[in-house]
Formats: sequence, C-alpha cells, structure tokens
Amino acid sequence: MACRISELVLDCADAERLAAFWSEVLGYVELGREDDGSIEIGPPGVGFGGPRPTLVLSPSSDPRPERLRLHIDVNATDRDQDAELERLLALGAKPADVGQTGTENWHVLADPEGNEFCLLRKRLQPL
Amino acid sequence: MACRISELVLDCADAERLAAFWSEVLGYVELGREDDGSIEIGPPGVGFGGPRPTLVLSPSSDPRPERLRLHIDVNATDRDQDAELERLLALGAKPADVGQTGTENWHVLADPEGNEFCLLRKRLQPL
Repeated sequence: MACRISELVLDCADAERLAAFWSEVLGYVELGREDDGSIEIGPPGVGFGGPRPTLVLSPSSDPRPERLRLHIDVNATDRDQDAELERLLALGAKPADVGQTGTENWHVLADPEGNEFCLLRKRLQPL
Repeated sequence: MACRISELVLDCADAERLAAFWSEVLGYVELGREDDGSIEIGPPGVGFGGPRPTLVLSPSSDPRPERLRLHIDVNATDRDQDAELERLLALGAKPADVGQTGTENWHVLADPEGNEFCLLRKRLQPL
C-alpha cells in the first residue's frame, strides 16, 4: 500500500451550511478553516490522517460542469511525496490543471478517465 | 455518531481500467463484482465495513452533467436504516431521483445543495 484516502473535498456554495449538515450526518467535528473559506470536518479526537477520511467543504463558484464537485485526496504512506508522484505517473495518472498556481504543496492529477484527485504532501503512517 | 462513510462510488466508462488503477494507487484488492459490471475494491483483509472506505467503480453512460460522478455512501452505526433515514430527512436531506427503481435496499438522498448520497442498509459497528 502506498497511498491512503485522507480527505474528500466537496465544492459547494455554502460551506457553513454543508459543514453543519455533514457534521451531523457523520458525527464529525470542525477541524479547521482556511483563508479561502473552506471548512474541514473529521472524526472527533482523531483529526486529519486517521483511517476515516475527513471532509473538506470548499466554497466554489466554478461553473465548469466537467469539474468533479467531489474529489479524492490521497497521501503516501510508505515513501515521500516526490517518490509517490513518480509512481502515480507511471501508473497512468496525468498532471491536471484546475487553475492551481503551481506553488501549492500538493499535486493535482487525473486518473485514466480524467477524474481529478490530489496527492498531498504529508506522509501518513501505514495503518 | 450515527453514520460512517462506507464507500465512494465513481461512475466511469471502463470499470476494469479504473479498478486496476485505483487498486494500485491505494493498495486495495477486488472485493466483488455486481451484475451491472461494477467492481468494488477495498483494503486487503478487511473488506466492506472497515474504517477505510471502499471504492466502487460503476459503469455508467449517464450523460447528465449535473449528476455527481463521485458520491458518498453512508451506513448507520447506532440505529437501523429506517431510524437513520428519519434522522437524515430531519437534518435537511431530501429524497433524490437518480433513476432508481424503488425496490433497492438503499435510499438515494441529496444533501442541502443537492449532492446525491446513499444510505445503505447494513448497520456497521461503531469504531
């Protein structure tokens, strides 16, 4: 095993509203907020990096219908980000442009059918 | 906590291809196949119902752009499906029509922004 699903990211209009809804559905608590208005919720007492994925409600007004509103973020568990990026590209992942600046500390990729997902930087402990 | 994310379901053109790709990315193994051609992959030795969500590659030719290609499935952990359905509707979830027959053993719902998710039947043990 080389990656774990760490987060699900849902583009939305009203992050507060969906964070409240999904927190109640899943018994999650707020883990943090970003300057862009995104809200991350996850299992209480565990936070980011546990076996259960967190959910990031990400405000977006992106009108592109082909963009996935919900995507997967993965983290390497047995190597660092650079080595895992090489492995993913060799598997058939392609770099994807979703408007990122290029200075982010994550990589935006697409699976063989173009479904966007991100490889985050932090290396997680294997389960 | 009343629900856990049990599966992610990704509509796709070629389930074999994506099952192979995502199995390599995540270190998952095939857990099962359905008559509709969908393939479920998940953590080896754990299967469905563990803390890490499984991934279901579901063949689809649905052209509706508003339909989420990736959606969340949840299972109740501290009550049965009927009681959890009542709770989700009270929270603001709405029944959604994605072409289901009505004889399925799961419920198709939408969150307050219309993102479709499903409440499955099986009650999972709390973590």
